[in-house]
Amino acid sequence: MKILVINPNSDSRMTRAIARAAGRFAAGRFETECVSSPGGPRFIETYEDEMKTAPGMLGLVRERESDSDAFVVACHCDPNLDLLKEATPKPVVGIGEASMKIASMLGHSFAVLSATAHSIPNKLALIRKYHLEGACASVRPAENGAYLAAARTAVREDGAEVIVLGCAGMTGRDEKIRRALGVPVLDPLVCGLIVASGLAAAGFGISRARRYRGRD
Amino acid sequence: MKILVINPNSDSRMTRAIARAAGRFAAGRFETECVSSPGGPRFIETYEDEMKTAPGMLGLVRERESDSDAFVVACHCDPNLDLLKEATPKPVVGIGEASMKIASMLGHSFAVLSATAHSIPNKLALIRKYHLEGACASVRPAENGAYLAAARTAVREDGAEVIVLGCAGMTGRDEKIRRALGVPVLDPLVCGLIVASGLAAAGFGISRARRYRGRD
Amino acid sequence: MKILVINPNSDSRMTRAIARAAGRFAAGRFETECVSSPGGPRFIETYEDEMKTAPGMLGLVRERESDSDAFVVACHCDPNLDLLKEATPKPVVGIGEASMKIASMLGHSFAVLSATAHSIPNKLALIRKYHLEGACASVRPAENGAYLAAARTAVREDGAEVIVLGCAGMTGRDEKIRRALGVPVLDPLVCGLIVASGLAAAGFGISRARRYRGRD
Amino acid sequence: MKILVINPNSDSRMTRAIARAAGRFAAGRFETECVSSPGGPRFIETYEDEMKTAPGMLGLVRERESDSDAFVVACHCDPNLDLLKEATPKPVVGIGEASMKIASMLGHSFAVLSATAHSIPNKLALIRKYHLEGACASVRPAENGAYLAAARTAVREDGAEVIVLGCAGMTGRDEKIRRALGVPVLDPLVCGLIVASGLAAAGFGISRARRYRGRD
Amino acid sequence: MKILVINPNSDSRMTRAIARAAGRFAAGRFETECVSSPGGPRFIETYEDEMKTAPGMLGLVRERESDSDAFVVACHCDPNLDLLKEATPKPVVGIGEASMKIASMLGHSFAVLSATAHSIPNKLALIRKYHLEGACASVRPAENGAYLAAARTAVREDGAEVIVLGCAGMTGRDEKIRRALGVPVLDPLVCGLIVASGLAAAGFGISRARRYRGRD
Amino acid sequence: MKILVINPNSDSRMTRAIARAAGRFAAGRFETECVSSPGGPRFIETYEDEMKTAPGMLGLVRERESDSDAFVVACHCDPNLDLLKEATPKPVVGIGEASMKIASMLGHSFAVLSATAHSIPNKLALIRKYHLEGACASVRPAENGAYLAAARTAVREDGAEVIVLGCAGMTGRDEKIRRALGVPVLDPLVCGLIVASGLAAAGFGISRARRYRGRD
Repeated sequence: MKILVINPNSDSRMTRAIARAAGRFAAGRFETECVSSPGGPRFIETYEDEMKTAPGMLGLVRERESDSDAFVVACHCDPNLDLLKEATPKPVVGIGEASMKIASMLGHSFAVLSATAHSIPNKLALIRKYHLEGACASVRPAENGAYLAAARTAVREDGAEVIVLGCAGMTGRDEKIRRALGVPVLDPLVCGLIVASGLAAAGFGISRARRYRGRD
Repeated sequence: MKILVINPNSDSRMTRAIARAAGRFAAGRFETECVSSPGGPRFIETYEDEMKTAPGMLGLVRERESDSDAFVVACHCDPNLDLLKEATPKPVVGIGEASMKIASMLGHSFAVLSATAHSIPNKLALIRKYHLEGACASVRPAENGAYLAAARTAVREDGAEVIVLGCAGMTGRDEKIRRALGVPVLDPLVCGLIVASGLAAAGFGISRARRYRGRD
Repeated sequence: MKILVINPNSDSRMTRAIARAAGRFAAGRFETECVSSPGGPRFIETYEDEMKTAPGMLGLVRERESDSDAFVVACHCDPNLDLLKEATPKPVVGIGEASMKIASMLGHSFAVLSATAHSIPNKLALIRKYHLEGACASVRPAENGAYLAAARTAVREDGAEVIVLGCAGMTGRDEKIRRALGVPVLDPLVCGLIVASGLAAAGFGISRARRYRGRD
Repeated sequence: MKILVINPNSDSRMTRAIARAAGRFAAGRFETECVSSPGGPRFIETYEDEMKTAPGMLGLVRERESDSDAFVVACHCDPNLDLLKEATPKPVVGIGEASMKIASMLGHSFAVLSATAHSIPNKLALIRKYHLEGACASVRPAENGAYLAAARTAVREDGAEVIVLGCAGMTGRDEKIRRALGVPVLDPLVCGLIVASGLAAAGFGISRARRYRGRD
Repeated sequence: MKILVINPNSDSRMTRAIARAAGRFAAGRFETECVSSPGGPRFIETYEDEMKTAPGMLGLVRERESDSDAFVVACHCDPNLDLLKEATPKPVVGIGEASMKIASMLGHSFAVLSATAHSIPNKLALIRKYHLEGACASVRPAENGAYLAAARTAVREDGAEVIVLGCAGMTGRDEKIRRALGVPVLDPLVCGLIVASGLAAAGFGISRARRYRGRD
Repeated sequence: MKILVINPNSDSRMTRAIARAAGRFAAGRFETECVSSPGGPRFIETYEDEMKTAPGMLGLVRERESDSDAFVVACHCDPNLDLLKEATPKPVVGIGEASMKIASMLGHSFAVLSATAHSIPNKLALIRKYHLEGACASVRPAENGAYLAAARTAVREDGAEVIVLGCAGMTGRDEKIRRALGVPVLDPLVCGLIVASGLAAAGFGISRARRYRGRD
């Protein structure tokens, strides 16, 4: 089984880091390949960034559909996820959606650490899109890299029982928070791989009924 | 005051029809100009269609920002609306959002007529995005042009008190339904123009606080 | 086009101030007239106040229906709005409903400044009635006239992206807040006039289907 | 203990019927007195009807506060309930609110039988006001007195497990439906008396904190 | 009329205290008997505690069904309430459900005082189960017996208008809080008795339609 | 990696069938063992059934904690799931929760096929508990084994885009429905195994923060 992990941005250092992390989780069980979206911007932060990376992401899914068993979008804001779900009946998994839905199975409520305060409303819009308002304790910005402080506030003041790292670039930050606070800390890339590899193994894919049917 | 109406698709007949309808409503009060999004597909039906028309729509807002007082996106699925709201502090109004929020002020609940059954889930996702689930009686497809039959079902079986035409291409269908059923029937283009011209007159625009702030 | 603005209270100084503000916004585009509800109390703060002003408001709508194209209720708690919607098929617009629904189109979430802490639960009940819980960041009391401080808290702590002045008597407070915080600040009277004049121009009115049908 | 039951309408036959039914339920346990609201219309169907009966209802609560331990508003649309809750710290109970909240304790979901299709949206607005959308299976009109048929549809098609008679005038219709369908059928007047007498016995009343505090 | 009050735990001092409090409220009106669940743990705090006390509670309902008119579960977390509702068509009332639904009739929103921070998520899950999220201002822990401080925070910071004592063991704490804060403070046992005695008097019981039908 | 699959009922034929299905999905990737809950009833249909099987399920988790990497509860009503989540920090996955949350990632909305009409309200209560009301199109009973007919109704009339088999005993029914309707049909046992094996591989488990902390 082979899973194509798509980094929507063009930061090759992040692509390599994602590739390594994906490989570590998959090792001995399935194959992963991580590619940058051609033409993607250096960061995905704005709606314009999402637009710019869309054609490259779509092209990757189309070109690699025959030799991939599932696709993972490796950005926690799930850019262009509906577009890719429409493009193939194979599993397409956003790490935002996968991580937050898995988090909701592990405790009463979860908090998301966001990279900046700027991205809070977009996270909240995503949480609403996924029907997760009732399971989300808070979105807390970890500005200037203060991951642990943000997570601690989420647990102590907001009642979060599970922490979701809200950016693919936060990979590796989980262990320290977990040890300090004693709650599950979810690396969203790992969550995306759990769902994508599981769906591929089971033969489950995106429904073509109506929402993702594409042009008739 | 001048309002730029953007038709996201490239169907020039529809662009002309929208231009005429906009002009009729604005006549003597404000100026309207209707343009097609360069590079837009012939219809907007899929997520890929939305992607294809995005750069053209964004380009129009940027090029015409200085000589326009507000922008109206003339497709009821509000394609790329967040992208455009991010692009300018001037008013950007989707005819889907404007028509359904106005409908919610005129009766207990509204129904949307959709062009096809295919588009129902996308309408429902839009309705959820705008927090309108509680005000929406139903989305009813008017397949094969059966507008009146769909509206009648919405009123009689679903309890709709206001009908929203769910496609810019349905312009002109309102009068017959209104006479037959005796309920308000909203042309979404008109609703978009009401909001856009009002916002422009008042000097209200899109907040740059966070969600639509763009790149710092 | 002529819009009758109804001030539910009997404070003639406020009626004159509302008349001036309405006239400024409408100037050159439509006519406005502002009248006090006969028998209305000096302030609208309690349910009993709403009751006392109801017959006068209803009488105004009935008497002035033939020479008015739309009605605006110029109190942010929208007193007796359902009663007036039932009384005429012409547009009847509450400045509370109009301002908060317009606010929801301009940013991720809005905050309402209330005149007193006393009125917070009534604002929240109104927000729920209009299905706006998900779009409202907070209701913040501006007690002792501390408008700017209340708005600042709403933006910084509650994440509000748009400020709604929650009282017709706050007219003129918007400019200072807008300059200080850089977010849209909505004068609700202006919002009410946008919607009312737009509906009148379009020929859209209150549905008589069931909720506002009146006695058969 | 004495409970004043207020019939908001002026139909003296209905007032006597309510008085008898209240007396039967209270017999030997507490005292009830049923009075019509002075100036009330013959039926309560419209918002104008609610307005007309408001001063009489408020007057009754004020005049009879000293010799009553609790008040019951005997109309299922709970007209002017907020107004009366504001008028006294003694218990004020609407039979709509009491019956639907009790129904939610007896089964998975309840249905309300409404007197006419006209009143469905008002019932739904009330259900939303009381946060009961999730517990309500449907509102079914029992037009032309077809109570049993409406209840049967609610149970079989809508999954209702409890039936609420949605009009004070339906008193006495419960037994036949209960026998035919085998589900609890709630007389709302009885529900109102349960809550009002219980609150009075416990010394619980309306909070004056903010929403119902009245003029400072 | 006789109401069996079931204390799910085996703390005989608490059982006696509950019995006294129940007797005081019922005095002269109906009979109450309070029994501990055989085999119940000393406290009900965990899901395992709930499991351990389930057979004893079920046994009590079965054994005492013929000589009881209604049952009250005297623990605010309503342990095994669905199980008991399934076991008898007679009224079965949880003091959590009864107290919070009554609270919602007395003010804009209520707060629950919980015995520990540990129990907050369970209270929130219960509040969601009963569709009361929209009526609940907060759950505030009264750790180390700081009832008044917790209630004051709920009223002043969270906007609570009614306080619900969130543990059967808090009986007697109400008076001091009520005097200090001037808002209704509900003893949940009393609320449970109000509903149970009222249902029994009216002949209303649990619906056997589907959810609580038991084995066919 | 070894996953213990717990069949809450004592039907040994079903236990063997579940064991075979689990083995097929896991083959070559992880180990599964399927055991019946000691003392479980023959079917899990009522709240009493859930109670009866609780001690056996809890005992299994405790006894087998050291040699199991995760637990799957193989009954779609997720009996005693909170109890088991409290019992171990290792992953505990209900096939109801896992299947419905996975379904929500594959299409706009899903439908659940229930074994009987009796179980509909319990499914709906579960769906609400998991915050999935907005993603669920319907629960449709497949009475008398009419799986395909129920699924077809869900797709055509309710707009379901994904079908969830709502009973562990429906294993094997998926292929026929998938071929006939062309939408994903999820075997819940497979979904439970996807999540459980993924969580175990990642080292994610149940949060002990508060809700599932157990006795201090």
